[in-house]
Amino acid sequence: MISFPIDDRHRINASQLDVPPRLLLGPGPANVHPRVLAAMSLPTLGHLDPRYLELMDEIQTLLRYAWQTDNPMTISVSGTGSAAMEATLANAVEPGDVVLVGVMGYFGHRLVDMASRYGADVQKLTKPWGEVFSLDELRHGLETHRPAILALVHAETSTGARQPLEGVGELCREFNCLLLVDTVTSLGGVPLSLDTWGIDLAYSCSQKGLGCPPGLAPFSMSPRAWDKLQRRRSQVANWYLDMNLLSRYWGQERVYHHTASSNMNYGLREALRLVAEEGLESRWQRHQTNVEFLWQGLAELSLVCHVQEEFRLPTLTTVKVPEGIDSKAVARQLLTEYNIEIGLGLGELAGKVWRIGLMGYNSRRENIILLLEAIARILTKAKKG
Amino acid sequence: MISFPIDDRHRINASQLDVPPRLLLGPGPANVHPRVLAAMSLPTLGHLDPRYLELMDEIQTLLRYAWQTDNPMTISVSGTGSAAMEATLANAVEPGDVVLVGVMGYFGHRLVDMASRYGADVQKLTKPWGEVFSLDELRHGLETHRPAILALVHAETSTGARQPLEGVGELCREFNCLLLVDTVTSLGGVPLSLDTWGIDLAYSCSQKGLGCPPGLAPFSMSPRAWDKLQRRRSQVANWYLDMNLLSRYWGQERVYHHTASSNMNYGLREALRLVAEEGLESRWQRHQTNVEFLWQGLAELSLVCHVQEEFRLPTLTTVKVPEGIDSKAVARQLLTEYNIEIGLGLGELAGKVWRIGLMGYNSRRENIILLLEAIARILTKAKKG
Repeated sequence: MISFPIDDRHRINASQLDVPPRLLLGPGPANVHPRVLAAMSLPTLGHLDPRYLELMDEIQTLLRYAWQTDNPMTISVSGTGSAAMEATLANAVEPGDVVLVGVMGYFGHRLVDMASRYGADVQKLTKPWGEVFSLDELRHGLETHRPAILALVHAETSTGARQPLEGVGELCREFNCLLLVDTVTSLGGVPLSLDTWGIDLAYSCSQKGLGCPPGLAPFSMSPRAWDKLQRRRSQVANWYLDMNLLSRYWGQERVYHHTASSNMNYGLREALRLVAEEGLESRWQRHQTNVEFLWQGLAELSLVCHVQEEFRLPTLTTVKVPEGIDSKAVARQLLTEYNIEIGLGLGELAGKVWRIGLMGYNSRRENIILLLEAIARILTKAKKG
Repeated sequence: MISFPIDDRHRINASQLDVPPRLLLGPGPANVHPRVLAAMSLPTLGHLDPRYLELMDEIQTLLRYAWQTDNPMTISVSGTGSAAMEATLANAVEPGDVVLVGVMGYFGHRLVDMASRYGADVQKLTKPWGEVFSLDELRHGLETHRPAILALVHAETSTGARQPLEGVGELCREFNCLLLVDTVTSLGGVPLSLDTWGIDLAYSCSQKGLGCPPGLAPFSMSPRAWDKLQRRRSQVANWYLDMNLLSRYWGQERVYHHTASSNMNYGLREALRLVAEEGLESRWQRHQTNVEFLWQGLAELSLVCHVQEEFRLPTLTTVKVPEGIDSKAVARQLLTEYNIEIGLGLGELAGKVWRIGLMGYNSRRENIILLLEAIARILTKAKKG
């Protein structure tokens, strides 16, 4: 039966899996609610099983609640947040479309890179990392570039800045363009309403504010964005993320597209149930109350936040690294001595900030107390050293 | 803090999740080994945690064993099998490249669709669904079309046919083209050696022969395919699946790309450990022995397999629907009365066959006995009715 000799060089004897009990207070993933892990362990179902199809409907409805939208095309993409990010652009951008991207951090740059791969004529508005755009600046950008799509990052994971979105949707309607928004670090933790704010394309991830492991990515598109997709002259240049195909799987037809992960979607459903049980208002308030407790504790340690308070995210805080301190060494000590993960600075902020995430299940007072105490001990030692 | 009223219309009260205990004997997913589900429930790790990086290395090594390859670029893509399928084409195809696709079922057509989205000049060799290509037919195709890439499906999930690959790699070297192979329904269940057979690009899925839930997709590319990627004149037209970027995350640099799912990769690692413990030779033999037991039982029920025995897959069997029998009604009865999932025919075979999968953990004698008995009871009733 076997026409070749079997090579055993890569047949390693890997040990039984054991992982350190990390407290994940970086830019994501966050720790997962035990109910979510328990749901993920239920028996696998086929991607066309009648019970699984019901569960898909429940996920759609609960995602609409979390995002505050009626968009029919609100689904979980079978990939991570970056896949859903690419899905918004792949479906909305036609070659030659002007896409105006607000770049105020790492993920703005990623939008530029992705949009250019789909043939967009990419134009940029830029801000120093940690700042946000005013409505006037956005109006000026729309007047200058007349884009088909304005892309903004609601919650810049690389800087901890919250881009206000009130009034931006009206502006985009005035200039007849679509509004595309990154909500990766806001969904489930930061006040957000796709429909109130006139957001046409949004993406997020499962592992931050929603408190599910990574691996799935919420995606939503408005009827306006759907219309643009239907008017395309060219095929969507990405099969896996083509919403024409995916809508036939998520909609009434139930046409097979890909083998969606029932176990991952069990987890997402449970995470969304937890959001609905808590209620958005309470959940957002919890994140805000806890982050203010963190900010106060940081100030008591003479640590300074990078972003102006008005525009700080409740889910992610950037903290300036004090003069003479090695940011990597501190993060390494937090991990190895306290089992706490925080994030380092990216891009313009590399070496200059730490990133502390308080997301979903992890936005709890006891986590903050432990983190502050661990930081205090490490910094005291460093100063003595 | 919140500038808009919260809309509770989508805040449904979803019940605690409960799923029926299906026996998954369709084209995938298959049931998952309990050790895999247990591994997936371990605490989430960050995608740059030192322990997680070790685990990525272990997955790479164990995947090389399962696929019998030394390819450095052997990874799990954060998506389903279709994402890894798209990854092979997105990286290997430059606009204008001739891609010759062997179409003998549904997934050959999918390769044609995907390749065309990346600007390939797609040429097809076709066979009736259920047949395979001879080496002479492939040679003739290469002579005629002189492609940059020959794409074949090793295990056609839609037909149950096994495309022999001995000698195809040599042929592709003679014609200076890359060999791209779909191993979605073969990896972990069907004799397969990327390096012996000279396969340059391969993709698979986590949920069939490997016995892990869906959500990850093994991907491998040979040094020859890597060279073609490095010689590209155009950027890879897909950010999420760009192997230039992904190689910096999976390789020594460990540059952040996307937030990989630690929990899903725990499951894949455990599934691959089970493959290494059993050994490929034993595992392939188990699949073959069990499928022959199935074929014998089907014959005893006067049911006829669609594919000639020599080319039948050990992982997936297509069975002809007898005259006068409604294939959907039988599958529905298996599901609702016996909790057994099997697959229906796709495309040319719609209504004409059932698809029975015996993959990974599910390739067990007791599953076959139960399935055969359930089919016997349903068909006896149908004939009486």
